[in-house]
Amino acid sequence: MKRVLAAELTEIMDDLVLLKGWIHKMKSFGKFAFVFLRDKSGVIQLVIEDEKILSQLKLEMSVEVKGIPVKNGKAPGGIEVQVKEIEIIGKTYYDLLPFSINQKKVEATLETELDYRYISLRRPDRRAIFKIQAEIVEAFKGYFKEQGFHEIHTPKIIASGTEGGSEMFTVNYFDRRAFLAQSPQFYKQMMVGAGFESVFEIGHAYRAELHNTWRHLNEYVSLDIETAFIKDEYDLMEFEIGFLKHLFQHLEENCKKELEMYNVVLPKIKEIPKIPLFEAQKILLEKYDKKSPLGNIDAEGEILFSKYIQEEYNSDFVFLTKYPASKRPVYTMPDDQYEGATKSFDLIYKGLEITTGGQRIHDYEMLRDNMIKFGLKPEDFGFYLDSFKYGMPPHGGFAIGLERITMKLLGLDNIRESTLLPRDMNRITP
Amino acid sequence: MKRVLAAELTEIMDDLVLLKGWIHKMKSFGKFAFVFLRDKSGVIQLVIEDEKILSQLKLEMSVEVKGIPVKNGKAPGGIEVQVKEIEIIGKTYYDLLPFSINQKKVEATLETELDYRYISLRRPDRRAIFKIQAEIVEAFKGYFKEQGFHEIHTPKIIASGTEGGSEMFTVNYFDRRAFLAQSPQFYKQMMVGAGFESVFEIGHAYRAELHNTWRHLNEYVSLDIETAFIKDEYDLMEFEIGFLKHLFQHLEENCKKELEMYNVVLPKIKEIPKIPLFEAQKILLEKYDKKSPLGNIDAEGEILFSKYIQEEYNSDFVFLTKYPASKRPVYTMPDDQYEGATKSFDLIYKGLEITTGGQRIHDYEMLRDNMIKFGLKPEDFGFYLDSFKYGMPPHGGFAIGLERITMKLLGLDNIRESTLLPRDMNRITP
Repeated sequence: MKRVLAAELTEIMDDLVLLKGWIHKMKSFGKFAFVFLRDKSGVIQLVIEDEKILSQLKLEMSVEVKGIPVKNGKAPGGIEVQVKEIEIIGKTYYDLLPFSINQKKVEATLETELDYRYISLRRPDRRAIFKIQAEIVEAFKGYFKEQGFHEIHTPKIIASGTEGGSEMFTVNYFDRRAFLAQSPQFYKQMMVGAGFESVFEIGHAYRAELHNTWRHLNEYVSLDIETAFIKDEYDLMEFEIGFLKHLFQHLEENCKKELEMYNVVLPKIKEIPKIPLFEAQKILLEKYDKKSPLGNIDAEGEILFSKYIQEEYNSDFVFLTKYPASKRPVYTMPDDQYEGATKSFDLIYKGLEITTGGQRIHDYEMLRDNMIKFGLKPEDFGFYLDSFKYGMPPHGGFAIGLERITMKLLGLDNIRESTLLPRDMNRITP
Repeated sequence: MKRVLAAELTEIMDDLVLLKGWIHKMKSFGKFAFVFLRDKSGVIQLVIEDEKILSQLKLEMSVEVKGIPVKNGKAPGGIEVQVKEIEIIGKTYYDLLPFSINQKKVEATLETELDYRYISLRRPDRRAIFKIQAEIVEAFKGYFKEQGFHEIHTPKIIASGTEGGSEMFTVNYFDRRAFLAQSPQFYKQMMVGAGFESVFEIGHAYRAELHNTWRHLNEYVSLDIETAFIKDEYDLMEFEIGFLKHLFQHLEENCKKELEMYNVVLPKIKEIPKIPLFEAQKILLEKYDKKSPLGNIDAEGEILFSKYIQEEYNSDFVFLTKYPASKRPVYTMPDDQYEGATKSFDLIYKGLEITTGGQRIHDYEMLRDNMIKFGLKPEDFGFYLDSFKYGMPPHGGFAIGLERITMKLLGLDNIRESTLLPRDMNRITP
């Protein structure tokens, strides 16, 4: 007998069906009880009259049920299942659940929820976050594959800390010291030059940053692209706009139910304003009396500037462009319009940076000279710099933080809510 | 003017086109030259008459070309492009290439090829390996998504070495010691129990094994699944058979050209023989006088037994089943047919194990007791064991080594050939 999901029950009425899931809620009326069965698709009302079995049931047990679905206007969803057989297939061994799964709200702190991820995810609203997150990944992959990009998997154990230095985790790799990659930056550039031309990677990135905030993780999923033969950084921004349009279309089609749980109205994107950083700093100062750090805007500035963009352009998104060279990595292509600026950008979404990108220097001598200008030693860059000797074409790329875009899309307060099992300075379990 | 790929040129003849790529080969005839342009799609013959530009061209430069495609029966593919303009957009800075890209064979060792991955991948035959690998990932994702599986991303930095112990890399995680995950095993089980029911993950796995062989990597990509409400391990083997059928269909449709480069004839799978390990050991002894280690077969045994299966069943694949409990992890479900055996399996493909899988113990007390029986301390398993207290359903799963299946499919000799940037005891760059 083939298993049927709770959400499929509308279509197959009046025949014996097999259901499997967890005991979500129970309401006893003496001789019978309503028992709510939860599976990955939803919750269905069971009617059980066998008092002996009722006395054995406990919340969150997993069970197999055979029964006949019938219409009942009063049951949630208009259907209930009259149970003929029920078998306990996964026993429970707890006294009290750490917090309720079947109530509207979780009566626990985020930290407790995260300590019991295997309980909190039993809530459909918590699982919905990760359904949407999986579809963001799907849309990313789908869009860039359609655009001719090739998927790569690059090493996360790397030999040298040249890109990040102090903010990297060290690994004891046999008899030497290695690092966990902060990004696939060097490798994605290398693969572009090696003839794949356009690549993307969905993979972990590691930052040993010494602060715990609502928007930082020490291990996160980075959605990276890199592509050759671009004209400049504006080509890259067009790719990101194309992706975002595709993403919201894809979510509309695949996550209606989950988006409703979080009252998400998907943005309609036509254009995304592109504003040079120094202009944004000027606006922040003039309009909000907000001073910015040299060559950047801070977290508060991002929030204020997003507010301004929302009012002026009716857009959740804004590209900040033309970051100064001093605030960007050594491989960033200098701008030809503004002295000291680069062909780089960040994308701010509802007050949070979700992307950093830009055109890269592709000429060997220019890159080497820039390293020297930055006070770096070209010989420390080994294979990376060497790979530019063989006809590297103009190229660039960007990275989107998966947990960040998920968080902002759903209006969550803390990035840990959009991370299955977050890693931060204090948390390394479960 | 929109760029056209070399492989698209059949369709758009006699109009000016824009091509971009690398100088693959040059044949000079004095006043003109055939210059072969390579892009990600293939190689096309250019005819260049401008002697000044010809004198500047060097192999592997990247260039932009405007020209008119014309039919020429003698040109490879029947088309050549008469060049009107050519611009060097990516200069070269080498004296000699480390090995040839445009010859039939690479005159270098595998180690040299790997040292210069950014050069060797310029060869279409090398890139083809990774095109096929990307499509294996695509097929995996597509098949299991279609089957209702949910994609997850679980941490690779973990707190405890309980699953693997000595074969794990350690990470300096702020002020404590952490490990790199050997597999997503604990987390995928946890997510099944947390209500996703069926999950898959495409992610890195780390093994600090102290040997360098043709079939081992210290960092590899693991294609993992885990699913609830199974009857036994045979359900899992059916999932793997289903995936393999889908995979070969998918490759047939998407990688014809690349498969031809390696003379691959895709297997037609109907059934895969399932043979208990002790039977396989008996056959090896009787037929090949080959002794096996206790509770396993070794690398030579895998090759001999695959030969036997090929002869007897005409199959590239064989499931070895019923491994003894002493050779499997503590969470493996005991068998109910053979004393001391487990509901576990390996899949051997052309003489190499590419999958390990099995049903897991889902009952809290049974798992705890098994830990004690194995001489382990239940309290060391913290959240993992704890997660079994809340109605864990029957479940199981398996993992496929991405580089291994790629290697065997293409008939490669060394797993490093099917790894973009391999990590082993001696290699951590590029």
